[in-house]
Amino acid sequence: MVTNLFQPKPPAKGERFETLLRNDHCTIELIVSSDTPEPTLYDQPHDEAVLLIEGEATLWVEGKEIAMREGDFLHLPAHTCHRVLSTAPGTRWLAIHTTMEPLC
Amino acid sequence: MVTNLFQPKPPAKGERFETLLRNDHCTIELIVSSDTPEPTLYDQPHDEAVLLIEGEATLWVEGKEIAMREGDFLHLPAHTCHRVLSTAPGTRWLAIHTTMEPLC
Repeated sequence: MVTNLFQPKPPAKGERFETLLRNDHCTIELIVSSDTPEPTLYDQPHDEAVLLIEGEATLWVEGKEIAMREGDFLHLPAHTCHRVLSTAPGTRWLAIHTTMEPLC
Repeated sequence: MVTNLFQPKPPAKGERFETLLRNDHCTIELIVSSDTPEPTLYDQPHDEAVLLIEGEATLWVEGKEIAMREGDFLHLPAHTCHRVLSTAPGTRWLAIHTTMEPLC
């Protein structure tokens, strides 16, 4: 019933995504990074919020670099272009997506 | 744009609620407790998820006591009766409610 988000170890490479909750309104994921992921530009049709739980990272958000440290919470409204520029090994995030797609 | 969730100090008494994001699908709050709040029984019509960011707490969830520590994530499906039995001073939570009420 309780999941401790510090338990899952980083993958050997890339990022591990674990879905913690999914319903008609939102998807909540734990993301654990081994290191800086492949650069991907995100332009999502839904609101997202991220909380950096452990580690540190730098994001690129519509032309600005944003340094994030533990406890930092960031709201990314729908269609806010963003990418991850760098992450420290073992960085972990809580990501909350409000409706990625309806559950059928 | 970035809010650090470790910054807001506990209130002198009771709990402080800060809304971090609210849209048609969810409400995300930071809750900082000075100490164990007044006992309230919650029976909510929507799903809730909580992440204990700092401190420790004991919840009562449908007859069972659940000890929570830093990093613990708990999904409380709609109509799961629960209450907070105790919290350490300065305990902070991220609470995600999926649709508390529509935004008009």
